[in-house]
Amino acid sequence: MASAGPVPSGSVGPTGSGGTRKAASSEVPGSSGTSQTMKKTIGHRGVDPTGETTYKKTTSSALKGAIQLGITHTVGSLSQKAERDVLMQDFVVVESIFFPSEGSNLTPAHRYSDFRFKTYAPIAFRYFRELYGIRPDDYLYSLCNESLIELSNSGASGSVFYVSSDDEFIIKTVQHKEAEFLQKLLPGYFMNLNQNKRTLLPKFYGLYCVQAGGKNIRIVVMNNLLPRSVHMHLKYDMKGSTYKRRASAKERDKASPTYKDLDFIQDLPDGLLMEPDNYNALTKTIQRDCLLLQSFKIMDYSLLVGIHNVDQAGESDQCIRRGQKALFSTAMESIQGEARGKGPLDSADQ
Amino acid sequence: MASAGPVPSGSVGPTGSGGTRKAASSEVPGSSGTSQTMKKTIGHRGVDPTGETTYKKTTSSALKGAIQLGITHTVGSLSQKAERDVLMQDFVVVESIFFPSEGSNLTPAHRYSDFRFKTYAPIAFRYFRELYGIRPDDYLYSLCNESLIELSNSGASGSVFYVSSDDEFIIKTVQHKEAEFLQKLLPGYFMNLNQNKRTLLPKFYGLYCVQAGGKNIRIVVMNNLLPRSVHMHLKYDMKGSTYKRRASAKERDKASPTYKDLDFIQDLPDGLLMEPDNYNALTKTIQRDCLLLQSFKIMDYSLLVGIHNVDQAGESDQCIRRGQKALFSTAMESIQGEARGKGPLDSADQ
Repeated sequence: MASAGPVPSGSVGPTGSGGTRKAASSEVPGSSGTSQTMKKTIGHRGVDPTGETTYKKTTSSALKGAIQLGITHTVGSLSQKAERDVLMQDFVVVESIFFPSEGSNLTPAHRYSDFRFKTYAPIAFRYFRELYGIRPDDYLYSLCNESLIELSNSGASGSVFYVSSDDEFIIKTVQHKEAEFLQKLLPGYFMNLNQNKRTLLPKFYGLYCVQAGGKNIRIVVMNNLLPRSVHMHLKYDMKGSTYKRRASAKERDKASPTYKDLDFIQDLPDGLLMEPDNYNALTKTIQRDCLLLQSFKIMDYSLLVGIHNVDQAGESDQCIRRGQKALFSTAMESIQGEARGKGPLDSADQ
Repeated sequence: MASAGPVPSGSVGPTGSGGTRKAASSEVPGSSGTSQTMKKTIGHRGVDPTGETTYKKTTSSALKGAIQLGITHTVGSLSQKAERDVLMQDFVVVESIFFPSEGSNLTPAHRYSDFRFKTYAPIAFRYFRELYGIRPDDYLYSLCNESLIELSNSGASGSVFYVSSDDEFIIKTVQHKEAEFLQKLLPGYFMNLNQNKRTLLPKFYGLYCVQAGGKNIRIVVMNNLLPRSVHMHLKYDMKGSTYKRRASAKERDKASPTYKDLDFIQDLPDGLLMEPDNYNALTKTIQRDCLLLQSFKIMDYSLLVGIHNVDQAGESDQCIRRGQKALFSTAMESIQGEARGKGPLDSADQ
């Protein structure tokens, strides 16, 4: 079993595809269990005196709380509106709601500082979620019913990453320009999802902004590219280039390293064997995805390939696999089959 | 059996929904068989000394010839390109090819003056045609295999209308602003077709421009709203208004008049009886269509309802109905059923 998906390399991290940038040497020590206090400040991400991660000076716990309050509110208010078609105008809509500490007639009291929560293109993202079979209740339950888990291998981008406790969704902070770019891409993204439902490109399920302490913290909700439910024995981040495309010594030392093109050629000189139908479907999908990325003038992306070796899989793997749903990540089934209403994989930003 | 579809009223004419404008008094005598030489010049449409219709001084026969040469070329060259997804950029593409009288290595010789033929958004319109099951061969065969037939009841808009000899497609000249507006609407139109396949709004299958004699003649290819294959015993053009909404005496004198809202209320005080499922599907579709028109800021439209009375239908009706395919016009089947891959009806411009 293999998972595959193009991952713009600026977004490395939570899926284990760390170290794909030239700037990898400045990367945060990535393996799970690294003490938070060892983290340096990278970009907007920092650490406060108690050792808690901060983003633009807001603590991770306050950010997680605001995200859950905000998403609960926006999904709830959306479900009260009648279903209707997405219009061009919907891509530029921004809904905004203020959450004072003491509560209001629209929002509950909470233990964080006042904040404002903005939802970008709510109707459009509802459509995207529906297209992949994510019902409002599922989305709310996954993201807001239990605590979000902060990922410690956050990569070099200075972003903070969270995963929902059920492993379905990744939440990632994005910079102003990234959020703006994603907004601009939405009409083209809509077109792609409608034509190319098996796309391996990132699935974006929501774009939000938490305004706190005079700062804008923009976050995107994506599918989880490599959920824990299936252990990947090998992972490759591939760019189709052989120039400096070998995993660093530091990456190789990790428990579950992500290798690169040159490693792939060396480790798997015969490549991966696939059924002709699967091979054709996969290459066709990758071609279509690349055409879209080209049209967006995005060139900094890679294909993340995860390989689950059934022969090597122990009893524990099987158990995890049976127990966990992982509805929305991309397994081979979604590459090869007809669009299933649930789908494909990934993680990343532009 | 009934056909229904919103028709922006500026585009009245070939479908029999004439006389819906306040300017109806200045309308060309509309019934079939009216002598061409009786026509006055309206807008860009005129008559030359031989009695032939002209548009921007180009004779109808030269225009028809140029359209057929142009479409044959553009559909042919498109079919040589690999299938691929429609991208945002495709909506603004304009392809252009020069047709000198004497022919070139790309174009055949012809008996008209030199002209240039432009195809707007070829990839996007190919997608629209495919969405409604119109294969390139069908499109070419319908439009280019036999002569186009000029419609004499061309309405007050100054447009020239043609119907394909198999009654499937309407071709209509549009003004610069209309063509520009349609181009701008294409992304939203794409979104609508993908979400609301049963839409009763006009189906646009192609947008072209013939440059001849220093003039631009823009044409749009649409589905034929009311093909001859099914005789409509009653036709109503309805705006949902009762203000001045009665067919004129002149309209009533026609062989097959198009009545209006007040006539409908008077003739059919109980309305039309429909199965609950059909009624719900139809009203839902009309609501969705109206939302789209509203988002486009289009308010000048009407719903054209054609009623084929099975009890009144003679043997000849039945024969025509069996003989003619009329694949692409909108009958009740497309209103009520699941999207059939072939579809809905209409005719009109914005």
